[in-house]
Amino acid sequence: MTNKLRDLVGPGRLASVMSVHNPLSARLAELAGFDGIWASGFELSAAYGVPDASLLSFSQHLDMTRAIVERGYGNAVNVMHVVGAYARAGVAAVVIEDKTFPKDTSLLAGGRQDLVRIEEFQGKIAAARAAGREHDLLVIARTEALIADLGLDEALKRAQAYSEAGADMILVHSKRKTPDEIIGFTRRWSKETRLVIVPTAYPDLTEAKIRELGKIGMVIYGNHAIRAAVTAMRQVFAEIRADRGIHNIDKRIVSVEEIFELQRVADMKQAEKEYLR
Amino acid sequence: MTNKLRDLVGPGRLASVMSVHNPLSARLAELAGFDGIWASGFELSAAYGVPDASLLSFSQHLDMTRAIVERGYGNAVNVMHVVGAYARAGVAAVVIEDKTFPKDTSLLAGGRQDLVRIEEFQGKIAAARAAGREHDLLVIARTEALIADLGLDEALKRAQAYSEAGADMILVHSKRKTPDEIIGFTRRWSKETRLVIVPTAYPDLTEAKIRELGKIGMVIYGNHAIRAAVTAMRQVFAEIRADRGIHNIDKRIVSVEEIFELQRVADMKQAEKEYLR
Amino acid sequence: MTNKLRDLVGPGRLASVMSVHNPLSARLAELAGFDGIWASGFELSAAYGVPDASLLSFSQHLDMTRAIVERGYGNAVNVMHVVGAYARAGVAAVVIEDKTFPKDTSLLAGGRQDLVRIEEFQGKIAAARAAGREHDLLVIARTEALIADLGLDEALKRAQAYSEAGADMILVHSKRKTPDEIIGFTRRWSKETRLVIVPTAYPDLTEAKIRELGKIGMVIYGNHAIRAAVTAMRQVFAEIRADRGIHNIDKRIVSVEEIFELQRVADMKQAEKEYLR
Amino acid sequence: MTNKLRDLVGPGRLASVMSVHNPLSARLAELAGFDGIWASGFELSAAYGVPDASLLSFSQHLDMTRAIVERGYGNAVNVMHVVGAYARAGVAAVVIEDKTFPKDTSLLAGGRQDLVRIEEFQGKIAAARAAGREHDLLVIARTEALIADLGLDEALKRAQAYSEAGADMILVHSKRKTPDEIIGFTRRWSKETRLVIVPTAYPDLTEAKIRELGKIGMVIYGNHAIRAAVTAMRQVFAEIRADRGIHNIDKRIVSVEEIFELQRVADMKQAEKEYLR
Repeated sequence: MTNKLRDLVGPGRLASVMSVHNPLSARLAELAGFDGIWASGFELSAAYGVPDASLLSFSQHLDMTRAIVERGYGNAVNVMHVVGAYARAGVAAVVIEDKTFPKDTSLLAGGRQDLVRIEEFQGKIAAARAAGREHDLLVIARTEALIADLGLDEALKRAQAYSEAGADMILVHSKRKTPDEIIGFTRRWSKETRLVIVPTAYPDLTEAKIRELGKIGMVIYGNHAIRAAVTAMRQVFAEIRADRGIHNIDKRIVSVEEIFELQRVADMKQAEKEYLR
Repeated sequence: MTNKLRDLVGPGRLASVMSVHNPLSARLAELAGFDGIWASGFELSAAYGVPDASLLSFSQHLDMTRAIVERGYGNAVNVMHVVGAYARAGVAAVVIEDKTFPKDTSLLAGGRQDLVRIEEFQGKIAAARAAGREHDLLVIARTEALIADLGLDEALKRAQAYSEAGADMILVHSKRKTPDEIIGFTRRWSKETRLVIVPTAYPDLTEAKIRELGKIGMVIYGNHAIRAAVTAMRQVFAEIRADRGIHNIDKRIVSVEEIFELQRVADMKQAEKEYLR
Repeated sequence: MTNKLRDLVGPGRLASVMSVHNPLSARLAELAGFDGIWASGFELSAAYGVPDASLLSFSQHLDMTRAIVERGYGNAVNVMHVVGAYARAGVAAVVIEDKTFPKDTSLLAGGRQDLVRIEEFQGKIAAARAAGREHDLLVIARTEALIADLGLDEALKRAQAYSEAGADMILVHSKRKTPDEIIGFTRRWSKETRLVIVPTAYPDLTEAKIRELGKIGMVIYGNHAIRAAVTAMRQVFAEIRADRGIHNIDKRIVSVEEIFELQRVADMKQAEKEYLR
Repeated sequence: MTNKLRDLVGPGRLASVMSVHNPLSARLAELAGFDGIWASGFELSAAYGVPDASLLSFSQHLDMTRAIVERGYGNAVNVMHVVGAYARAGVAAVVIEDKTFPKDTSLLAGGRQDLVRIEEFQGKIAAARAAGREHDLLVIARTEALIADLGLDEALKRAQAYSEAGADMILVHSKRKTPDEIIGFTRRWSKETRLVIVPTAYPDLTEAKIRELGKIGMVIYGNHAIRAAVTAMRQVFAEIRADRGIHNIDKRIVSVEEIFELQRVADMKQAEKEYLR
């Protein structure tokens, strides 16, 4: 069994990945042409209305991930958080991060951002590789050293140790408002292992600039689906309240028929024609 | 145990209810000032990317409903589909409809829209009342007679029979592009039992006009949360693909901090201050 | 992808299958040497304390089935109820039955046992085959004609129609206290399609006698796991209550260490040794 | 809202509690006359075939607990593991233990048994009390000091600190083959707070002896349901394999009709008579 993701992130390639929180947003990401989707713990927590602080359980995340994979969305690349069950659920990659449990989300000012020891995390990487081997699962090791304010040297040291422990890719995350830190990291990175970045805090780092840097095989847009949805729902809800009716907004949102299309109602009707006798 | 919803839909009142598909959209509906929320099977099916055709299971709907109620959203009014477990999960009302199982969604052109016999449905209403009595649950009987093209007389006959069987409210649904059918129904309705409508197909029927009609105690906006979210995600995804980066859209969607607020991260941090020692 | 079950039920073979209700009972069935397991709706309903009358949802059954398959139990043969999701969850066969929804369990005296039309059920078989083709899933068509007191002729007519519609095996179920009806059916069965039986009501039909009959490729023991567990729990609970302590029963039930073994605690400890650093 | 459990464990009383793993075993415990049930993480892990080592998620445990409570079993007393969601799910008490996450089960020889700091655990107790106050939830603090070989003094010190932090009861667990350690602890315990014990390892400590000791308000039988079920299933499975049929065991296990009774099939049939028209 081979994993199409390996090709998409190789030298000279850059996979563009969208974070999602349910099968519908995954389908929209696929239709928009993204190379893959990220079953984001942050987005899922937000959809459930709880902080991204280890409050949703592993099985709740797996259930939603499976619902996404079941619908066949994000076919080429699915990027996610744990191993084993995820591999069997059909994902292409998992991201494991070096924060302690329970964690706080990365961009939360003043959040707890303690890291596990390097050797301990190398063990996790080795375990993840063993668990995913049968499915050719990509193991992406994510270091939060920059999020935890430990500096470039510590981040590079950890990334190298993780690469040596067998990580297929290294995700390095920064909370700076400019991409300088990530650019610095990338310039000093000397291993073959390709990098992954999540430019939420420094939106000016476009894919064009990322390609120039080289070494980076994947960019993940980490929370834009849920932020887009919230923006729209907040505005539409306010307008219905102000107008006391839907007469004004009805034409400005997608039609019910477009929703039917996303649900693939036509496929179901076709199957009914064949099999309902 | 008394149910606050009863007051909100009484004579001279009109409850304005928003359909939602997860705790986050429920929270946004609450913040926008809606009187209640509807855990919409249509919206939830769409969020899972499947047709609204009895494909999601009862327990999947209940799980999401419970997740919404657990977060304390939509406190005054929660309007939903089944009984028993829903009552225990803390909802204020259930809607049961007179379509056969498995069903097709109401606004699907050419969908199967068969109705159960009147006596059979009266039995269901009585069973629902018995199951919800302990929790003072409102049982809303929904007739799809107009959706099934059976005409006003049949719709009125069914509504009266359901009212006599003990329904607390009658939901009458129409797929006409104008509100004439619903207005006709309402004018001819002579029972005390208050009505519920879902003006998706005839958006020009505003709350002001509904109040003039009288007899209607609740208006539900049936799929605007998911349509708003899809509209925004579709557009933002397309723009990121076109721009190959998030530099342009970043300022036009809500910030990560606003998401933190919706997740009530501050409450969690306050609890940590008190209890993490 | 080929399905090992096909061989196990072929001419001259008889697969012996145990019904189970969770991963633990599946593991015990495997250790006991059964050829396969049946994720029994009856057993699962009983474990949840509800009647086997379409009260547990499809997704609750699928979740438990997946938990069983995830643990790698019942490796050769897993026999179950629905298609699609089950095929992707890794099962080897599904059983679909010709009763209307919602159903009553087969052995309930006075239960509702209405059957769907033959053409409708042939459509279901074709749909199931299409859904499972990619995974070489066996589709077992179960007729309840004898349960519904429709007689041997109707049972044979339905079995033939189902076989012609593409069923891989035919499960024929009887509620008689003797095996005469099933023996009669088997003697008159002239198609190549192999049969499946569930001898709950006529326990004297042993595997030796079944082999003599020929044509039958699989025997399923339909509710003995849960009945055994209930027998033991009922007796042990009563004894603890009578003794007001566990001093007498402690030696007569399996030790905690045996439970550890079934949970494969040693494997986990071995993995910890390798990866916990 | 008052909690009946408080009375059952007060001075001079001894509540006898059975551990269970699904609604069926809960129903059997209720029928046997136990004062309450314990939704045991150990039993549930075993039922899922996984080690009791934080592998099952919080939400999987909550789902099963809710399924038990939903069926109305174990009416007087339900003793369990976490708070908040459990309180809303209708449980009477939660047990929180002072082991670090992820944990190993208590009776596993050579398992990791690290404890959290006393102040940290006092914070957890205070948080649990706050979360459960509205439902008058009993918070039972479980110390694993004896399991971790820290000695009687440390166990007493922790128990006192937990009591001072607001714990309603103290559960003290020992892995010794004799009750000496628990007896020593109880003799030296000088606070009003009532104790809870789980005599798995020292089965000779009967309820009569426990009453003599005084101070203990609850005894939990921690894994006897699953051990009884395993014992019976293992034996019945082996016998069916040896006999190649069910002719010999059929009479020695409970009948299908007894299972119907536990599922309350008669209640369902009665409701059908009333409401199916």
